[in-house]
Amino acid sequence: MRGEIVTIGNELICGLVTDTNSPYIAERLMSLGVEPLFITSVGDDEWAIEDALLRAIGRAEIVIVTGGLGPTPDDITSRAAAKSMGKRLMLSPEALEHIKKRYKRRGINPDSHAERQALIPQGARIIINPVGTAPGFYMSHKGKHLFFIPGVPKEMKVIMDQGVLPIIADEIPQDVFSARKVLKIFGLSESQVYEKVKDVRYDTERVKLGFLPVFPENHLSITVRTNSSVADAQKILDNVEESMRDALGDAVFGEDEDTLEKVVARLLKSKEKTIAVAESLTGGLLAERLTNIPGSSNYFERGIVTYSDESKVSLLGVDKKLISDFGAVSAEVAEAMAIGIKRISGTDIGVSTTGIAGPGGGSDKKPVGTVFIALAYDDGGKVSVKSHRYGFFGDRDRIRQISSEMGLEWIRRYFIDEGEKENVN
Amino acid sequence: MRGEIVTIGNELICGLVTDTNSPYIAERLMSLGVEPLFITSVGDDEWAIEDALLRAIGRAEIVIVTGGLGPTPDDITSRAAAKSMGKRLMLSPEALEHIKKRYKRRGINPDSHAERQALIPQGARIIINPVGTAPGFYMSHKGKHLFFIPGVPKEMKVIMDQGVLPIIADEIPQDVFSARKVLKIFGLSESQVYEKVKDVRYDTERVKLGFLPVFPENHLSITVRTNSSVADAQKILDNVEESMRDALGDAVFGEDEDTLEKVVARLLKSKEKTIAVAESLTGGLLAERLTNIPGSSNYFERGIVTYSDESKVSLLGVDKKLISDFGAVSAEVAEAMAIGIKRISGTDIGVSTTGIAGPGGGSDKKPVGTVFIALAYDDGGKVSVKSHRYGFFGDRDRIRQISSEMGLEWIRRYFIDEGEKENVN
Repeated sequence: MRGEIVTIGNELICGLVTDTNSPYIAERLMSLGVEPLFITSVGDDEWAIEDALLRAIGRAEIVIVTGGLGPTPDDITSRAAAKSMGKRLMLSPEALEHIKKRYKRRGINPDSHAERQALIPQGARIIINPVGTAPGFYMSHKGKHLFFIPGVPKEMKVIMDQGVLPIIADEIPQDVFSARKVLKIFGLSESQVYEKVKDVRYDTERVKLGFLPVFPENHLSITVRTNSSVADAQKILDNVEESMRDALGDAVFGEDEDTLEKVVARLLKSKEKTIAVAESLTGGLLAERLTNIPGSSNYFERGIVTYSDESKVSLLGVDKKLISDFGAVSAEVAEAMAIGIKRISGTDIGVSTTGIAGPGGGSDKKPVGTVFIALAYDDGGKVSVKSHRYGFFGDRDRIRQISSEMGLEWIRRYFIDEGEKENVN
Repeated sequence: MRGEIVTIGNELICGLVTDTNSPYIAERLMSLGVEPLFITSVGDDEWAIEDALLRAIGRAEIVIVTGGLGPTPDDITSRAAAKSMGKRLMLSPEALEHIKKRYKRRGINPDSHAERQALIPQGARIIINPVGTAPGFYMSHKGKHLFFIPGVPKEMKVIMDQGVLPIIADEIPQDVFSARKVLKIFGLSESQVYEKVKDVRYDTERVKLGFLPVFPENHLSITVRTNSSVADAQKILDNVEESMRDALGDAVFGEDEDTLEKVVARLLKSKEKTIAVAESLTGGLLAERLTNIPGSSNYFERGIVTYSDESKVSLLGVDKKLISDFGAVSAEVAEAMAIGIKRISGTDIGVSTTGIAGPGGGSDKKPVGTVFIALAYDDGGKVSVKSHRYGFFGDRDRIRQISSEMGLEWIRRYFIDEGEKENVN
């Protein structure tokens, strides 16, 4: 079954906005075995929308269209859809009632603009929008299935999951079954990943691998398609996944929806360890990533962004002499920061970052991208600390990004090392 | 002059990757007066690539194609391009030499895969890739202009700016001149923005407005097109912009490439004020946004993420009794945090956030989304503090996002208030 995605909005084609709806929709379609062929973005232009819709119907069985369903005059998707399929626009009483209810709840009287959103092509079926005003609609035309949903990402996601996918699953017969997994890797380059997995044997007819650098990580996707059953697809996937994991070892930190911070959060929670961080060049990014997870107050005690030398001394107890002798960007200061933050917060683990994010501040001995990470931890009654010097490349954003990733990776590595110690004992 | 963008890669159409190349290319095309009509993404499939290219040539004068130019067997863009335009693939000696040089520099022997990248359609002209191996190429076909460039964003940007845009500007006569500005707004809803500007008069033939919610902001784009000159377009734009700014007042915090943190950074630098932040629910996000700007060490002294009650007391000197009497999420604690961070860091301004990001932790009196922001500042010899309670909606991410935005907005508002005081005195 082939799918197409059409996203509508001037903001998309003139570069104001990145189309994040399409990847979401594509992924959801793939989960039902529908293979997206084309993604097309067009402006709020009736001719262009009609052209895009007609081409999509010509090539695919399932077409998902987002955007242009709002109340303003540039929202013309319904009209263009009706025209391109030779239908009239009709007022949907069901949609109108929903719109009125939404407006009422917000204490606003629906005006004629609002009511325009209740106009849908004749024969279309309303898909209620539980989180917004503009409803979506579904129509079938010459054996093809078209779904129109609002372009606001939050609304799009809910309608896609609750409204569109059930219709596709129920009404449309499936002939291909698929399963997919993405393995997430940090610390290996794309070519290192390729080298490690290149001798793994698998059924190349039914299994496709995808190598994807997602800075600072590398992702390896495994997609299985078979015409027998979902269970078969899953079984093949499980086997290939096992082989890939064997080949890649613990460079694989997670899969699918995992992020490195989610993985680290799970480790901290399950091992009942608490953490505090002291950051310099990452400027709060490490704390932000550790706390963007629900329940993070269970393990995250505090974070300190010590940008100035003075704050490193007064807040973390870093010896002034270390800073003057070795510089704020040094293994000595990184280690003192990690020990300091662990001590003052009373946590099991303390992590620190210090470095030069650029563009200024670099020198011959410590160029932009020089970064020290340190981790302090309880080690049989005493506190031990480790640190390492990295030379990262890229602009300020990338250096901060990879440094925060490395800070998280150090926490993950800490648990791997602890696990190995336990196994030995 | 109409443009189209075609991006190629299985990772794009199966949802693994968001197409960030297209917005960049669209914006660059717009800057030369080329209006993008369609953006199409297709997989690494010869039939689909040919179909996309032929449609694009049929509709537009300028077509930019990215992706599928690498060394691996799934990189088939050159072949599909040649086939769809009835040309043969030829080995470009110029491209081959460049590729060999790049490989040599990295100490690798170019193999046959690498040399595949030197195959381009007959009659095409190489566009050298200064930052990568795969070259781009340019061809004209039936009066249309096609540019093929690698899909790696870093390489795409350099080749687009240094290779493609000069060719478009030199060789292709211009008949439409455009100018554009985006005004960025925080604190007004989309409909409030619309209400404020709806009576502004402008030349609707040559000026187009775009309303765009980019959570938690609203953006208003003004695009001018005229067939007289760039200077004319700019003059019309300046007039409309002035009217819009009059209508919107200081809800407009910036324009085009501005972010709220950049605007706040400029204010802090120009007024020579220093800042420190104490965060609870934003977990480092406010510090991160204040420090993701080069030179932020000039104004940002430190940030503290006091997640635990204990850290609020020991690090910021918040009175324990305030926390037990009013709760950690209260105006009293927010104000004490702002005063505390200002005092210990010795900065001109101290900002704090405390609130409930959810999904857990809410109560009837303080539901998820309850957020207090406070700002402490020097006020004629003494320290004053202000705070406000907000009720934000959305998931954890959105509540943290809008809270950090509001923290930045408070800093901007502080400078607006100071400016007004100066005007009065």
